[in-house]
Amino acid sequence: MEVTSPEQESAGPLTRGCQWLKALPKEFCAKVMGIAKMAKKLGQDDPRRIIHSLKVGLALTLVSLFYYFKPLYDGFEDSALWAVLTVVVVFEFSVGATLGKGLNRMLATFVAGALGIGAHCLATLSGRTAEPILIAIFVFLIAAIVTFMRFFPRLKARYDYGLLIFILTFSLVSVSGYRDDQVLKMAHQRLSTIIVGSCISVIVCICICPVWIGEDLHNFVAANMEKLGNFLEAFGDEYFKVSEEPQSNVNKSFLQGYRSVLTSKSGEETMANLARWEPGHGPFGFRHPWKMYLKLGNLTRECAYKVEALNSYLNSKIQTPAEIRGKIQGPCEKASRESSKALKELASAFRKMVRTRSAILHIASSKTAAEELKNLLKQSVWGEADVLEIIPAASVASLLLEIIECIEKIAEAVYELAKVASFRNRDATVLPERPDLLHQGAVQQVSDIDMLHHVITIAE
Amino acid sequence: MEVTSPEQESAGPLTRGCQWLKALPKEFCAKVMGIAKMAKKLGQDDPRRIIHSLKVGLALTLVSLFYYFKPLYDGFEDSALWAVLTVVVVFEFSVGATLGKGLNRMLATFVAGALGIGAHCLATLSGRTAEPILIAIFVFLIAAIVTFMRFFPRLKARYDYGLLIFILTFSLVSVSGYRDDQVLKMAHQRLSTIIVGSCISVIVCICICPVWIGEDLHNFVAANMEKLGNFLEAFGDEYFKVSEEPQSNVNKSFLQGYRSVLTSKSGEETMANLARWEPGHGPFGFRHPWKMYLKLGNLTRECAYKVEALNSYLNSKIQTPAEIRGKIQGPCEKASRESSKALKELASAFRKMVRTRSAILHIASSKTAAEELKNLLKQSVWGEADVLEIIPAASVASLLLEIIECIEKIAEAVYELAKVASFRNRDATVLPERPDLLHQGAVQQVSDIDMLHHVITIAE
Repeated sequence: MEVTSPEQESAGPLTRGCQWLKALPKEFCAKVMGIAKMAKKLGQDDPRRIIHSLKVGLALTLVSLFYYFKPLYDGFEDSALWAVLTVVVVFEFSVGATLGKGLNRMLATFVAGALGIGAHCLATLSGRTAEPILIAIFVFLIAAIVTFMRFFPRLKARYDYGLLIFILTFSLVSVSGYRDDQVLKMAHQRLSTIIVGSCISVIVCICICPVWIGEDLHNFVAANMEKLGNFLEAFGDEYFKVSEEPQSNVNKSFLQGYRSVLTSKSGEETMANLARWEPGHGPFGFRHPWKMYLKLGNLTRECAYKVEALNSYLNSKIQTPAEIRGKIQGPCEKASRESSKALKELASAFRKMVRTRSAILHIASSKTAAEELKNLLKQSVWGEADVLEIIPAASVASLLLEIIECIEKIAEAVYELAKVASFRNRDATVLPERPDLLHQGAVQQVSDIDMLHHVITIAE
Repeated sequence: MEVTSPEQESAGPLTRGCQWLKALPKEFCAKVMGIAKMAKKLGQDDPRRIIHSLKVGLALTLVSLFYYFKPLYDGFEDSALWAVLTVVVVFEFSVGATLGKGLNRMLATFVAGALGIGAHCLATLSGRTAEPILIAIFVFLIAAIVTFMRFFPRLKARYDYGLLIFILTFSLVSVSGYRDDQVLKMAHQRLSTIIVGSCISVIVCICICPVWIGEDLHNFVAANMEKLGNFLEAFGDEYFKVSEEPQSNVNKSFLQGYRSVLTSKSGEETMANLARWEPGHGPFGFRHPWKMYLKLGNLTRECAYKVEALNSYLNSKIQTPAEIRGKIQGPCEKASRESSKALKELASAFRKMVRTRSAILHIASSKTAAEELKNLLKQSVWGEADVLEIIPAASVASLLLEIIECIEKIAEAVYELAKVASFRNRDATVLPERPDLLHQGAVQQVSDIDMLHHVITIAE
């Protein structure tokens, strides 16, 4: 049975049509507003995105000067389009990606251009009939071989774009040589315009608010450690609180931050590959050990898998009764709190690139708590309780012990990295080499208190 | 103290130089042999890589015919280079990626070309002096706005390449219009050559041994389930065997297969994005629910995290003594064996795209084993054992219970997907719509026995 309002009933088709038409711009407005809101959020989340967009516009405008100014245009003529094309495809968000693509493009164009000219000359010697056949064979062979080379994992990681451009340039130079006799001039123009385009991209990318992907990787790895620390900090309270209010439906989103760590592997690998293209900048030297970041990332992920197992006990159906849980509450809370502090200390020192072993204190006290816990468990603290109900609490305890072991490994990896990358020693209160950098990059997310501490150190 | 052989001692610098020169080609040979071996392995691992390389060579040779045949060349002239360029950059390993890039490129070139001509006309109206300024402003604005649009996650997933080409074409057409009055002809030539290049790529990619990324995703998801099944199959034996031979250093690589599942998320997402570009083929309809594969993949990964926790008990330092472990051996082994069978049954039916609930039997018996296990634990099977030593075995038992829950969720997701994607019903022994496809793609990895079963079914 349909219920219609009196208004609706009285409205004719015309009126309804008008209402529909009126609703249409409303819907459209709502959609536009939605997009605008999303754009605003994207910009607020990372303002570097807006700056990057403006940088691309600037680089393209710069390169298009080659068309507007006659003296510049006369040098390149129609080949100037390669410069425009290069800027569009080479300009990437981070310095590492832009440099990697630019260098790959220039080198590949140079080598493939030379080879293409060679192939063209060889083919020309064989006469006008055999020429296209020979060139076709060359193109087929080179394309097939180089395409297969792109599957080699090492080449794929760093030179994939270069291999693509190699095929491209070789085909273009050798094939178009058939119609254009000035193949040498063409190859030369192509190379020089690509160099110009790449250089404009790289210069704009580095000189205006550069985004160093190595710095991003550094902060990413530190943030992942912090996320695990945040979970562990909240875990103790949460696990022993639930016992008092079972089935509490509070928002536990702050406990879910660690989940992104579980799937961070591919992101880290991409960043490390790009970071290797970057020149030394600020606290990051030219041969900064980016590969060790991957090792540290793997250890953090191992720890995250344990945290995931721990998390499952927060929402598990079978729960150990509160009174039994209470028996291990003390050392469990201490272990999770201290391991959280250790992780956060490690992350903070790592982020600020200082070499300090202050986390060792927290690791030591978390190990003490672990020993306490072990002794408690040995003493058959459970009494005559149902074993099935003991298991969750016992598993939580044993997971905490494993997590502490993981954190020890993470600490070792951090110390090793700090040694190899020669982070500065905190105890010596060495001034940062370029204090101005403190405000921008590596230490961007340092809290105000830490900044104050640095200022005091500098003042001293 | 250095020990030198009499030969070495008597040899003069000339002889040693000769030896070094002789060793050089040996080293070189060893390196070349290493590369050749690696290439052979890459080809053997996936022979489609070799075919793909040959396909790229073929497509490039085909497109270079535009230069060799005068009637073809006259139509495009120098613009023919865009066709070559398009083939090189559009031709990808899978049909989905090639189609996605090709369509993106054609559409973006069309829209941006039209807009570029509009901008050029508008700028021309304003006179020769204002023209470059106006065009520069247009280029700057379009480049900045579209670059920012590339950060929208939805656009990035499917139209990233199209947006890049949009900036490229708009800049090229509007800027080069300043020097070339035949801007309409240029835009038209560019569009038609890009259409030709894209079409050649897509045709070669689809017609010669196509690589369907959707099929890869399908097999990937099935293989991940199988990997977890393999681990669980081996786990029971391994866990209760170790008790007899502690510290056994046997090669346990067969237990490590599941590890790749932990980090499979980004791969699955990329494949699902590309698969959506593919037309219907074989058993995969046009609107195949690729998004549901991601859901299934997530559930499989949840299960993999539990398996990772289970694995840590295989190598744990604290082990429950064998006699205590023996008490839960029966139901534990049964639970892991049956859950392994359930997963493998699910994976196999999923891989073959049949709709069967045969896995339910194994899930049911694994649940029976779980109940047995729970009852055993309730009866305080442990006696007066040290609680600390009980924990690992108890945790293993509780993890197995959780894994069974996970597998139930996976089974539900598989059934739901089978329903939405209308997999065929096994019990009705419906013939596959195109039996020839059985031999190629989706069912490529079906065992011989399964093939025999199909043949018998068809014969009936």
